[in-house]
Amino acid sequence: MKVFIEPIGRLINEFSKLPGVGAKTAQRFAYRVINMPEAEAKSFAEAIISAKKNVHYCKICGNFSEGDICDVCRHRSAETICVVKEPKDVIAIEKLNEYNGVYHVLHGTISPLDGIGPDDINIKGLLARIAEGGVKEVIMATNPDVEGEATAMYITNLIKPLGIKVSRLAHGLPIGTDLEYADEVSLARAFLDRKTL
Amino acid sequence: MKVFIEPIGRLINEFSKLPGVGAKTAQRFAYRVINMPEAEAKSFAEAIISAKKNVHYCKICGNFSEGDICDVCRHRSAETICVVKEPKDVIAIEKLNEYNGVYHVLHGTISPLDGIGPDDINIKGLLARIAEGGVKEVIMATNPDVEGEATAMYITNLIKPLGIKVSRLAHGLPIGTDLEYADEVSLARAFLDRKTL
Repeated sequence: MKVFIEPIGRLINEFSKLPGVGAKTAQRFAYRVINMPEAEAKSFAEAIISAKKNVHYCKICGNFSEGDICDVCRHRSAETICVVKEPKDVIAIEKLNEYNGVYHVLHGTISPLDGIGPDDINIKGLLARIAEGGVKEVIMATNPDVEGEATAMYITNLIKPLGIKVSRLAHGLPIGTDLEYADEVSLARAFLDRKTL
Repeated sequence: MKVFIEPIGRLINEFSKLPGVGAKTAQRFAYRVINMPEAEAKSFAEAIISAKKNVHYCKICGNFSEGDICDVCRHRSAETICVVKEPKDVIAIEKLNEYNGVYHVLHGTISPLDGIGPDDINIKGLLARIAEGGVKEVIMATNPDVEGEATAMYITNLIKPLGIKVSRLAHGLPIGTDLEYADEVSLARAFLDRKTL
């Protein structure tokens, strides 16, 4: 005898596909859905369909967008372009409410080990935007890992000869941590990039 | 400017309703859905609708069921009834592959603090099943907490006078733990219920 009846087993299976969700958690999620009022379950299912159908990518910057062009590209000056790996990085930066420029989403980083070269990510689009003129600074905000650093270096080498200011997010100690517990690489970078007071 | 566009915000909101899912996790789930192939997202949404529509409760035991009567009630002898709080407890016991009797799901436990009395859970159904005859043993498998114990005691007091054997799952030390780390209540119960070898 199967432990789960088909509709429950199927839902558990679907939930297990979400990142970080194992069998037990998927079960808890499925029970929650079964105990939801019908309208709520329907609205949940519709939200999934709607997200899949109505989330597009901005034709200029590659960010999530409901229409062809995203809100950021429509309303902000393109003097400063912040280059990120994924649309979710845009959201992380937007939450800060500190940055007023536009973005460029690469949709990946150069990673020879995974067979991802410069032509597989959206670098061409960035160069085209710069060629149109008006760009004064490009901020490289790729992740501080090997692939992110390599990608930032690669793009910097392409853009700098064009006479555009290229900057990189600062690395160092995260605020609020103990020196004792900081990882070695960050601590080393904090020494290297120390500021004169 | 909103940080999330509407379809993403809505999906994040729906995922946040799942147990133990906070804002960050809901975001990760939403990104996963957006990156799914369309067919996969559709099948996910359908699984939710189907679970809500096709999961009913067995008219005999109150367990999850696709039809009126669940597989367990249809195929097994009703000599032994195992009384549990929720349908998911049935699944936990079924996974053991040790128990061959039927179940009775109370759909709650007596909890005066929450205003749940004996009439608010499915005790009547259990008494009706016993009145039909043929039941030899009732195993009280409610949770080992205050409400579970109280409910087990309450039902035992109703059934025992009918001359039916009533048993309770054993409490004590979980297998594989260190005595040192066992909680005090379990350790005390392990002493109290010690077995002569």
